[in-house]
Amino acid sequence: MKIACILADGFEDSEFRVPYDRLKAAGFEVVIIAEKEGQELVGKQGKERVRSDRSIDTAIVEDYDALFIPGGYAPDKLREDPRFVGLVAGFDDAQKLIATICHGPQLLLTADRVRNRTMTAWSTVQVDLRRAGANVVDREVVVDDNLLTSRKPDDLDAFSSEFIRQLEARAGEQRPSQPAT
Amino acid sequence: MKIACILADGFEDSEFRVPYDRLKAAGFEVVIIAEKEGQELVGKQGKERVRSDRSIDTAIVEDYDALFIPGGYAPDKLREDPRFVGLVAGFDDAQKLIATICHGPQLLLTADRVRNRTMTAWSTVQVDLRRAGANVVDREVVVDDNLLTSRKPDDLDAFSSEFIRQLEARAGEQRPSQPAT
Repeated sequence: MKIACILADGFEDSEFRVPYDRLKAAGFEVVIIAEKEGQELVGKQGKERVRSDRSIDTAIVEDYDALFIPGGYAPDKLREDPRFVGLVAGFDDAQKLIATICHGPQLLLTADRVRNRTMTAWSTVQVDLRRAGANVVDREVVVDDNLLTSRKPDDLDAFSSEFIRQLEARAGEQRPSQPAT
Repeated sequence: MKIACILADGFEDSEFRVPYDRLKAAGFEVVIIAEKEGQELVGKQGKERVRSDRSIDTAIVEDYDALFIPGGYAPDKLREDPRFVGLVAGFDDAQKLIATICHGPQLLLTADRVRNRTMTAWSTVQVDLRRAGANVVDREVVVDDNLLTSRKPDDLDAFSSEFIRQLEARAGEQRPSQPAT
């Protein structure tokens, strides 16, 4: 399975690195999508420097099984750009898994995908989501249909485990050789 | 007249500096309030380093005529802290002028003071405000009763001029020797 990760400068270093490494170790392909292909992206702590694999201009929902949006300052930059907001909406329209943490759910808010959804986020973003009509809960991981959300770096272990569990469950559903129960 | 300016690390350098200098030059006193008294605060561009005059623990609405909230990353930190959110609500309850730019209106959102108010903010924050029931307009300066809002560093000249104009108008109203028209 192939996962799209949308990224800009100022991402929260650990919120990219921990799930990224866990996903790769579990055998998933993760494609980093930024404004430009081959763009160097620097984390807000300056600890992580990564290069994007693709430009948002060549990113289409059909190529991926899930979307991953790390937190930090990056989401506020990404949600300025209708191409990233459109991609997020496209994953949701296709009912594909969207896993996001901390400030990442701001992109769901801009894409108008939070009303009546049960979710969590960074404490300050929880307020914005609640005012936008989301059912906000303060738990380390929240799954509502195709949305998987967490709050902060402390939640990363639970977030990464649940992310992989959800991908494996969806892989199971897709497999045509799956025996009927 | 005395203006309270609430600040944390990561404020947008120019959005503090330009109005601060303009207010001082116009004869207003500006008191920088942060978590701690004497705390050094660094702008997100690293160009401005300022020291706070007071701790939020000793800040009371009655001591000030207006509130100034610069943008950048600082507002997202300040709105995590109920003491700053409470101060903002206090200025609004007292119908005192609140002048804020860029991400600053996030504090008004957390303080639940945006429903049916006409205002502006940084483009991404405009979405959050609209979903929270504000009447959002995309103009360089918006005045609605005691709220004065602007969008970004490019708006700073208009923001600072209108800030001073509003303070002078309010000073005129307060002055008992003001001749009746």
